[in-house]
Amino acid sequence: MAPRYAPSLRAPLPLSILLLQMGFAALFALYARLAEPEVTADNHFTNTYAGFQDVNVMLFLGFGLLATCFVRYAFSSLAFVLLLGSCSVQWAILANGFLYHFHDGKIWISLRSLAEAQLCAISCLIAMGSVLGKTNPVQLLLMALLEVTGFIANTWILHTFLKAEVMYSSALLHIFASFFGVIMSWTLVQKQPELQHEKEKLDRKTALFSMMGVLFLWMFWPSFLFGLVAPSLPACKMAAIYSTYLSMAASAISAFTISMVMSPRGKINMAHIQGAMLAGGVAMTFVISVNHMPWVAITTGMCAGLLSTMGLLYLKPHLELTFGCHDTCGVLSVHGLPGILGWAAYLFVQVSHAPDTAWSQSMFCICSLLITLSTSAVAGGLTGFLLKWTIWRPPQDRKRFEDQAFWKFEHLAMEQ
Amino acid sequence: MAPRYAPSLRAPLPLSILLLQMGFAALFALYARLAEPEVTADNHFTNTYAGFQDVNVMLFLGFGLLATCFVRYAFSSLAFVLLLGSCSVQWAILANGFLYHFHDGKIWISLRSLAEAQLCAISCLIAMGSVLGKTNPVQLLLMALLEVTGFIANTWILHTFLKAEVMYSSALLHIFASFFGVIMSWTLVQKQPELQHEKEKLDRKTALFSMMGVLFLWMFWPSFLFGLVAPSLPACKMAAIYSTYLSMAASAISAFTISMVMSPRGKINMAHIQGAMLAGGVAMTFVISVNHMPWVAITTGMCAGLLSTMGLLYLKPHLELTFGCHDTCGVLSVHGLPGILGWAAYLFVQVSHAPDTAWSQSMFCICSLLITLSTSAVAGGLTGFLLKWTIWRPPQDRKRFEDQAFWKFEHLAMEQ
Amino acid sequence: MAPRYAPSLRAPLPLSILLLQMGFAALFALYARLAEPEVTADNHFTNTYAGFQDVNVMLFLGFGLLATCFVRYAFSSLAFVLLLGSCSVQWAILANGFLYHFHDGKIWISLRSLAEAQLCAISCLIAMGSVLGKTNPVQLLLMALLEVTGFIANTWILHTFLKAEVMYSSALLHIFASFFGVIMSWTLVQKQPELQHEKEKLDRKTALFSMMGVLFLWMFWPSFLFGLVAPSLPACKMAAIYSTYLSMAASAISAFTISMVMSPRGKINMAHIQGAMLAGGVAMTFVISVNHMPWVAITTGMCAGLLSTMGLLYLKPHLELTFGCHDTCGVLSVHGLPGILGWAAYLFVQVSHAPDTAWSQSMFCICSLLITLSTSAVAGGLTGFLLKWTIWRPPQDRKRFEDQAFWKFEHLAMEQ
Repeated sequence: MAPRYAPSLRAPLPLSILLLQMGFAALFALYARLAEPEVTADNHFTNTYAGFQDVNVMLFLGFGLLATCFVRYAFSSLAFVLLLGSCSVQWAILANGFLYHFHDGKIWISLRSLAEAQLCAISCLIAMGSVLGKTNPVQLLLMALLEVTGFIANTWILHTFLKAEVMYSSALLHIFASFFGVIMSWTLVQKQPELQHEKEKLDRKTALFSMMGVLFLWMFWPSFLFGLVAPSLPACKMAAIYSTYLSMAASAISAFTISMVMSPRGKINMAHIQGAMLAGGVAMTFVISVNHMPWVAITTGMCAGLLSTMGLLYLKPHLELTFGCHDTCGVLSVHGLPGILGWAAYLFVQVSHAPDTAWSQSMFCICSLLITLSTSAVAGGLTGFLLKWTIWRPPQDRKRFEDQAFWKFEHLAMEQ
Repeated sequence: MAPRYAPSLRAPLPLSILLLQMGFAALFALYARLAEPEVTADNHFTNTYAGFQDVNVMLFLGFGLLATCFVRYAFSSLAFVLLLGSCSVQWAILANGFLYHFHDGKIWISLRSLAEAQLCAISCLIAMGSVLGKTNPVQLLLMALLEVTGFIANTWILHTFLKAEVMYSSALLHIFASFFGVIMSWTLVQKQPELQHEKEKLDRKTALFSMMGVLFLWMFWPSFLFGLVAPSLPACKMAAIYSTYLSMAASAISAFTISMVMSPRGKINMAHIQGAMLAGGVAMTFVISVNHMPWVAITTGMCAGLLSTMGLLYLKPHLELTFGCHDTCGVLSVHGLPGILGWAAYLFVQVSHAPDTAWSQSMFCICSLLITLSTSAVAGGLTGFLLKWTIWRPPQDRKRFEDQAFWKFEHLAMEQ
Repeated sequence: MAPRYAPSLRAPLPLSILLLQMGFAALFALYARLAEPEVTADNHFTNTYAGFQDVNVMLFLGFGLLATCFVRYAFSSLAFVLLLGSCSVQWAILANGFLYHFHDGKIWISLRSLAEAQLCAISCLIAMGSVLGKTNPVQLLLMALLEVTGFIANTWILHTFLKAEVMYSSALLHIFASFFGVIMSWTLVQKQPELQHEKEKLDRKTALFSMMGVLFLWMFWPSFLFGLVAPSLPACKMAAIYSTYLSMAASAISAFTISMVMSPRGKINMAHIQGAMLAGGVAMTFVISVNHMPWVAITTGMCAGLLSTMGLLYLKPHLELTFGCHDTCGVLSVHGLPGILGWAAYLFVQVSHAPDTAWSQSMFCICSLLITLSTSAVAGGLTGFLLKWTIWRPPQDRKRFEDQAFWKFEHLAMEQ
């Protein structure tokens, strides 16, 4: 093979995808059955379908378009998001099903299990953000299977040892996914050659596509958190919507402000806006279940936007220069830091509401955070090591962030 | 008229549209009234509104953006989809109304009749895919009226002679529309000059717009099939959602795999992905009403993706070279073949579930398919002949796939 | 400061946004509380959430993308829509809250107050359309606060002096916002230098983004009007959906026709389509509450599309040449004229239905229109004068419609 070409994936990739998909089909044939919907709540299940559909929009349109920002990597980003989303949803239905929805020798699929699978797929796509452009689809598929498994394992550990509720451990998804991604990226790619920085940039048009993805995520985030609140608490569910809406608005405003004030000539950076607009929603993931005061939501959103912009400005380049840890989409700043901020706000509100259980609450929160960090670091590190294996034919340095390696462009007219 | 310019449509087009729209207004004034919503099912009708809105998104955003793929024809494609959608919905409300919702001398319009009209409009837009770029809006409008009439006539024939249910004959829409389109295109344009192939290509940016259209269709397909299941079967309606979701995921994965394995250097072709991702949904149109096993959905999706990619790779160029039949968007491969696959799967499942009625079931299915194929071929052929008439001022060969013929670009800045 | 650079907003803008957002946070902390959702209507509130979400999509995706049409101003337009939307929603929640939802010393936030705030934000974004490109974000923020205050004041005046219902005065939003915007633009910028006309043009790609915004507005307009009908009239709410759907379709068709017939060579102008497609929805804002006949909706839509296209063709350039009044997005033709048409149709239907109250009905309608026009003219004029103050560092003529003034592009790759 001439060294100028990216390694062809014709043999390994289709084979591995096909085997995977056939394996899924076989497991579904053996174990999966559709659960009867509870016909009593006749109207409720279609409502839930609207929420499910909103999260579906976030998953595919939101993350898919968000990933199209790189000037020469838009096709690949979008397509790999679809591929990973489609695979990880199926794997998560099976894995969650064996753990939580297995009775009478079958997995019972319901709207609930699809929604849980969407959560896992979202965590997988967040983690993907940190290795985007530096991996090929075979590596990404392997990563998806391991990340989803790791995330479900973490939920199971928290459930088994700390008696954590599903809602609580699901809220840790941003923290888990971003640490998994960063550690994986650190293990996988140590040194970053200078030449690829050119391709890591935005284009005026791809930035608009990417901004549309941000908008879909931003607008439907209330539906996402709505689904994370137990249906037995309707007041809490509605509060989740109002709070998230206000928090997202505050976080967008904060992102604009900080991006402008940090630039020497007062100019806004689109990459900061895209990251930090979502930080308010990330931070609310924990807070919605304990807080019903609008000003707390607004303040959390503002702080999250500030923290995230600062992270993108200082933490991301610092990690790259000092540790050689290259986090493509800055998931640590966009999901990790605001996630921890939200966790801290949750702990603070919990303790201030019920000072007599402060000690046990704090221990529970801190233990669950430490367990999540450890699990994500171990899983991410192992995944990174595994992906380094040359058997996966990783793209050469020069072929990173380059659609040409994966796409047939002879059907495309030349750019005018 | 100088031969260099495309024929001006200033006189015929606005006149014909205006007359059409005034005719619609007059018919609505004479016959159409709004039905009282059933207030008893107070919550149900707004739920249905959400489903209606999802199909509306598919109709205009989905098909509209999907059609923007051609590098010099994006404006026209999008605008003609809007024009045809708007006209055919009104015509279908009237035509369906006279056949099925006519009592007390009036057509009674309800959310149901709007949803039925959307189905007809979708079939019209599918058929449009095969003549896109080779026709002017006058021809397309005429085609829309004839296609919708033909589709409704086919439903009426199946209902009258075979006692087919509406749900079943609606599910034939992909097969009817794709055969209508291909036969019409074959009758209309025999020889394809070489020069226009250049303009039939994708652009990096228009391919992203088009991919967004695919994503809207892909994501909201469960809502589309949800609406095709009778509301008296809530379990079946939910099963439609789960099955379609899984089938679409499998079909996307299959499209990636086959597109990659069929390319000499293992490269993916965006045009294959865009077509074959939707094949899983097309194939499920029949299957959802009889199957509640997730693995059947996944397998159907995989086979549909495979069949559709193969069709785009081999059938589409073969038709063009051998028969001079040029199918612009490959509707035969994207809607026709997966539709027939779904029909076959439906028949197979029906027969295997109830072997004692196997003979009558098979006869019913085969007859309905043959009737649909004949109706669509006859209607498509007649439409093609009618559109050939030079009175419609068809675009010259050199002006095909060219926005310049229809759009005023003096308001546009030059491409940088 | 060298004259070549746009004035830096590093000091004033972040400071003013931050102070504003902190002020909002403080007011929310002091006064705002979340209302308990009425748990009895258990299913109803989530339905309303779907409607709320649709209007949210219109607000941010619809207006945001619609504004991206200018070839060098897409980033700024989109970002300023987000900024203004986020701020004006918060301000409107507070202002409406103090007027209408204040009891027990607190503002009670519910889905209803969020929906009302969205209406105010939409009126603010419409007004923004007439000064887009000629103002900086500080000016726009000030404008947003004043416009929302003025709109709420107008509602309050109509409610207090004419006993107008909230639904009726909300329907005046298009008329109020467009006149406010045009008068503000006239006061703010008198002479238009020739050089910036080049940048006010569309680009083939930005026109597609903008068209997507139009499509989101067009498709979800039924949800918007659905929310403007009192929930006590379910029949009327459904009629709103059917009528708006038909009216939007007719208005799209009318826009195509008129745009084509008015061009010397029968060519369509994208800018006309984008404006006039929405006119049918604007005109229906009033009509839905009195009319249940489909043909009235279709006729209103056709007339609105005609009027709006004519306005864009003749009124917009005339205002510019004769009065030096530059209406960037043509809001007078897109929202003002169809709004008045809808108002006239409403009056006509009201009078013809109940001839005995014709006199009082007419007086009420005419008075409310005159009051709205006066309030909007006074508020718009004052806002325009205030924004002229050089303390806000308005962009120089040469820097209008130019992203470069606000955005850091060093992170962007060069356009290929």
